[in-house]
Parts: sequence; C-alpha cells; structure tokens
Amino acid sequence: MDKRSCPLSEVYGLLEPGPVLLLTTAHKGKSNVMAMSWHTMMEFEPPLVGCVVSGHDFSFAALKATRQCVLNIPTAELKDKVVACGNSSGRSVDKFALVGLTPLPARTVGAPLIAECYASLECRVIDTRLMNRYNFFVLEVQQAWIDPACKNPRTLHHRGRGAFMVAGETIKLPSKMK
Amino acid sequence: MDKRSCPLSEVYGLLEPGPVLLLTTAHKGKSNVMAMSWHTMMEFEPPLVGCVVSGHDFSFAALKATRQCVLNIPTAELKDKVVACGNSSGRSVDKFALVGLTPLPARTVGAPLIAECYASLECRVIDTRLMNRYNFFVLEVQQAWIDPACKNPRTLHHRGRGAFMVAGETIKLPSKMK
Repeated sequence: MDKRSCPLSEVYGLLEPGPVLLLTTAHKGKSNVMAMSWHTMMEFEPPLVGCVVSGHDFSFAALKATRQCVLNIPTAELKDKVVACGNSSGRSVDKFALVGLTPLPARTVGAPLIAECYASLECRVIDTRLMNRYNFFVLEVQQAWIDPACKNPRTLHHRGRGAFMVAGETIKLPSKMK
Repeated sequence: MDKRSCPLSEVYGLLEPGPVLLLTTAHKGKSNVMAMSWHTMMEFEPPLVGCVVSGHDFSFAALKATRQCVLNIPTAELKDKVVACGNSSGRSVDKFALVGLTPLPARTVGAPLIAECYASLECRVIDTRLMNRYNFFVLEVQQAWIDPACKNPRTLHHRGRGAFMVAGETIKLPSKMK
C-alpha cells in the first residue's frame, strides 16, 4: 500500500472541509462501499466523527451489527466511481468489482481500506444514542492512513442531485482557529 | 433585505458541501456570531442539522438557554470577516461591530440574520441528548433565506489553522443520488 500512518491529531483537517466519503463495511463475509456526505467532526483527539447512514442503505445493518467501518476520502479523479457507488446497492452486487475499487485489509477493523482513495480512517462506533431516531452514528477514528504523495488533494463536495463542487484554491489567513 | 424565502427542501444542497458557517445567537439582550465548520445534514425535510458548538464558545450558553440560532453561509468574499469572528470572543466585544457584519431581524427566532451572508437558516434546537457529552446539538431549520442574485456562491471550507479551500468548479454527473 502507498499510504502511510497519519497522526490522529491531523484527522480533523481531512474531514472538516466536508468532502464526499466512501464508507466501507464488512459483514457476514461481504464487503460493501457507499458514498456519504452527511458527516461532521465532533472532537479533535481522539478524533470523533458523527455521520448519518440511511436505514435504506445496505451499509446501515453492517455498521449497526459490526460497529466498524472505514471512511475513505476520494479525490476528484475518482468522481465517476463515487457516483457509481451512489447509483447501485450492495444488496444486489459486489460494488468493489462493479465500480472498480480495490479493497485492502485494514489494521484495526474488519472493513476494508480502498486503495484508490488518498486517505482512509479506520473507525469504531462508540455511541448509538441517536441511531434509532436519526440513523446517526458517533465514530472514533482508531487509525488513519494517508498517501504522502498526494500533496494538494482536490476533493469532491456534493451539492445534491449529482452536482459536485471540486475543491479549488487554498488560501491561508492569519487565524488563531485550530 | 435582498434575500428571499427558500424552500426547505433545498436546504440540504446549501449545507451538504460543508461550507464554513457563521452561527448567530441572541441571549440576554446581546447578539453574538461565531465561525463554525463542524456541522452535518441529518434529514432532508424538515431539514435537520447536527452541529458542535464548543463549551468554550460564548455561543454555547446562548444556544443552550434559548434553543435558537441562525446558520448563515458566507461567500469567499467575506473571508477576512470569517477569520475575524474566529479570532475574537463575544464575551468581551460586540463582534458584529468589531468585524463589520450587519444583524437583521429573523422571522421565527430571536437570533439575527447576517445581511452580508448569501443564505441564512433560522433554526431551533430539537435534541440535546448528545449536548453534554459532545457539545452536539440537533437543529431543525424553520425558515430559510437566500439571495437570488448569488447564482454560483464560492464558499469557504476550513482545512484547519486558517487554511481554507475555496469552492471551485461545479461538475454535474449522471447521479441518482438525492
């Protein structure tokens, strides 16, 4: 694998801009992947991430049962694969094969990393109090991986109905914000 | 005001890309504004939004007490004002005056709209089950306003430590995703 371990203290900078993610699960011998935009950071370190996985999604049952997943961050080059993930269900097909994504074993969870994504975050579910009402899971990132060769990743940000904003220029301002 | 009422069914498209927001509150006769990036959509309609407001922030007490706020979306042109909001506390100053933002009365909540932002979402807190543990609030958007003249807003997406990605080109793909 081309990715290297990434300090957990740097995870928030990967998710805070709001990129589309590919969430992977593994359950009953079957891996699956879905596109997801409804996520937020909830704590810096250890990094906590809140996310909504619809009860209609095949991944919901896997996440609920295994309490493990990987959040993978695709760059804009993967846009067609991201949309293909969103347009199919793991109920009926092997999405990795269909879409052309390569699953790799993770270190701390059963769900796979996606080789083509520039960063992957191995997560465990730590709080399900809002799961029944909102399909909302609180995840703790256990292990983060990043491709050191990908210096300025152009991420995808979903505007709805297949319209994506691609990450543009980065500006640096004299901020005291973390 | 230049903004028009926006259908609640369109709110998710404003927040899903993950822009930096300016959250306003009003409590004990004092309005305040803070920059916020830790938010996620939780339901399409009525639109539900989850967000983290740190207990260190002056806005936390106001949000907890009044259960009302406005989420305002700034464009990249407001970047210096956004950073100025993040670099000061409403504890000691009137941030609207300091930063140069104009509060306007909202329709359904006591917190103000920000005239300079291209969209404003009037919200009420509907769930505080994760407030004590994570400073996490679930908001329901009651009323949405948008500036119809702002066709392709260039939003700000925080990468951490004052580095912002500016929304770039929008691409349209043949997606079945909502």
